[in-house]
Amino acid sequence: MTNKLILGIDIGGTKSAVVIGTPSGAVLARASAKTDAENWRSGVQSLFGLARDVCRDYGCQMSEITAVGVSCGGPLDFETGIIYAPPNLPGWEAVPLKALLEAEFGLKVAVENDANATAIAEHRWGAGAGCRDMAFLTMGTGIGAGLILNNQLYRGRNGLAGEIGHMTLVPNGPLCLCGRRGCLEALASGTAIGRMGRERFGESTVTAHDVCDRARLGDPVAREIIAEAAYFMGLGLAGLLQTLNLERIVLGTLAVHAADLLLEPIRRSAQENCWPLVWAGVTIVPAALGDSAQDKAALAVALPLIKT
Amino acid sequence: MTNKLILGIDIGGTKSAVVIGTPSGAVLARASAKTDAENWRSGVQSLFGLARDVCRDYGCQMSEITAVGVSCGGPLDFETGIIYAPPNLPGWEAVPLKALLEAEFGLKVAVENDANATAIAEHRWGAGAGCRDMAFLTMGTGIGAGLILNNQLYRGRNGLAGEIGHMTLVPNGPLCLCGRRGCLEALASGTAIGRMGRERFGESTVTAHDVCDRARLGDPVAREIIAEAAYFMGLGLAGLLQTLNLERIVLGTLAVHAADLLLEPIRRSAQENCWPLVWAGVTIVPAALGDSAQDKAALAVALPLIKT
Repeated sequence: MTNKLILGIDIGGTKSAVVIGTPSGAVLARASAKTDAENWRSGVQSLFGLARDVCRDYGCQMSEITAVGVSCGGPLDFETGIIYAPPNLPGWEAVPLKALLEAEFGLKVAVENDANATAIAEHRWGAGAGCRDMAFLTMGTGIGAGLILNNQLYRGRNGLAGEIGHMTLVPNGPLCLCGRRGCLEALASGTAIGRMGRERFGESTVTAHDVCDRARLGDPVAREIIAEAAYFMGLGLAGLLQTLNLERIVLGTLAVHAADLLLEPIRRSAQENCWPLVWAGVTIVPAALGDSAQDKAALAVALPLIKT
Repeated sequence: MTNKLILGIDIGGTKSAVVIGTPSGAVLARASAKTDAENWRSGVQSLFGLARDVCRDYGCQMSEITAVGVSCGGPLDFETGIIYAPPNLPGWEAVPLKALLEAEFGLKVAVENDANATAIAEHRWGAGAGCRDMAFLTMGTGIGAGLILNNQLYRGRNGLAGEIGHMTLVPNGPLCLCGRRGCLEALASGTAIGRMGRERFGESTVTAHDVCDRARLGDPVAREIIAEAAYFMGLGLAGLLQTLNLERIVLGTLAVHAADLLLEPIRRSAQENCWPLVWAGVTIVPAALGDSAQDKAALAVALPLIKT
C-alpha cells in the first residue's frame, strides 16, 4: 500500500493547501494559496488548480491518485460532504465539496472537520500512536475535540461529537461566541485568554500570545490569567476523562505554543478533578505533528477510502 | 439461536437472583436468595446453589446452558472477571468470580458492572432499542452510566468509562461519597436528594422517596430540592451530550419512580445547557425494562459469548 498516492486538501480561513502524500503520512509535494472565504465558487476553482499544480510538480497524473482527503472547519456533513458556512468560511454555504471534487477528478473523496481530521492524524502518526481511546483537542480560537474510541473516529448522532468547548462549566459565566454563557471555550480558549488580557490590562489590542509573553516575563496579572484558563481547561478535561476513561489526551494550538506555561497547570487541574484510577490511565501530551499537522490531517481523512 | 439457554446472575447488595433466559431476553425461570455481602465464599456457594435450583425448576441440565452472564456492582475487571469489593459487597475483595463459575459449571462466563449490563439490556430490549449511540444512567444511591457507542459497549482504558457521577459540577460543592466535592452525584443522586431533605427539613430520617412524596403534596421546600437536583442532572447530561452527541439517554431508578417530578425539569435543564442541534438529535426517556431490568441485564452480559 506504500506506493499508493493520496491527495490531501486542507482548507483554512486564510490559506488552503493541497498536498500529495502516502498512506504512511509522508508529504511528497505541496502547493498553497489564499482562500477565497467569501466566494466558494472561486475558492473551489482555486483548489482544483492547486491540485493540478501539485500533480504537475510531483510529476504524476491525477489518475494515479488513489483517494482524496479534505480537512475543513465545521459545521459540515461527513456523509454528504457538504460544508455549511464554517465561521472562517462565511461564503461557503451548503457547498457540496465532496460531489464537486469527485466530479472534477473522478476520484473517491472524504471530507472531515479539522478537529476530527487532526485526531486521526495524531492517532496514526503523532502523539496518540498506539492508543485505543484518545482525544485530540484544539485550544485556539475555539476548543473542540476529535474522539478516537476503540481505534475509530467517533462522530455521534449527527457529527457533533467532541463539541466539548460548549460544555457549561460556570452557569451564567462569561459570554461565549456560541451565544451561551460559561462554556469551557469562553473560559480557557485562546480567545478567552485574549479577552481576559484586554479586560485586565485595559488595553484593546492584547492577544493571547501577548498574555503568554507577559506571563513568561513574570507579570502577575498575566500569570493569573494563564492559571485561570489552565484550571478550567483541566476541569473540562477531567469531565471528559470521567466520561470516557481515555488513555491519551493530545492538546494542540496554544498547548503546543505555550506548553511551558500551560501544560503542567492543566495536568494538575485535571488530576485534582478526576479519580486517581482514571488519572492513572491517561497521559496528557502536546500534539506531535507540528507544522505539518494540517497537511497530514488532510491525508489522514482519505485513509478509510484506501483498501489495505 | 432462540432455542439457546442463558444463565443470568444478578448480584445485589441485599439479594441475588439467578435466572434462565433466552437470547431475546425472555426470563423462563428464576431463583433468588439473600446475598452474603460480608463473606464471599458463602456468597458464591449460595449462587452455585441457586443456579442448580433454577435448572431443576426449569427442568434442564447445566450442560444445556450456552453461556453465563453476571451483573454486579463495580469496581470489577471485565477481562479477568475479578470483583474488587464493591461498596455494596464489602467482603467480596478480589473474588475471581468468572474463574470460579467457569470451573464449577464448565461454561463460558462474562462479568460486567451493573450500569454497563443494564445499558446493554436497555439497548437490546428496552428504551434504547434501535439506537446506535446511547447512554443508560442510574440515578439512585449513585449516578453511573453505561455507554453504547457505535452499537457497542464502550469501557475505556481500564473499564471506568461512564463514571460521570464524579464529574465536578460545582468546585468546592457538597461532599461526595467518593471523597471529592461538587460531583454530579453529590448534587443530583437519590443520596443527594435525601441529604438535602434531612438538612432542609431538619429531620434525620428523611429519604429521597420522602422528599418526592412531599413534593407531590406541594411542599415548597421539597419542590425546591427536586428542582435543584433536576437542574444539576440536566447540566451533567448536557455535558455528556456536547461530548458524545448521543441519540438517546435512558434514565433509571429515581427517574423512573419519580418520572412525574423529575423528567421534564431534567429535560429542560439539559436543553438549556447544550446546543440546539445537539439537543435536536437526542431523546431523554425513562428506562423501559421495569422490575425485570436486573434479570435481563444479567442475561444481556452473556450475549457476546453466544455465536449467532
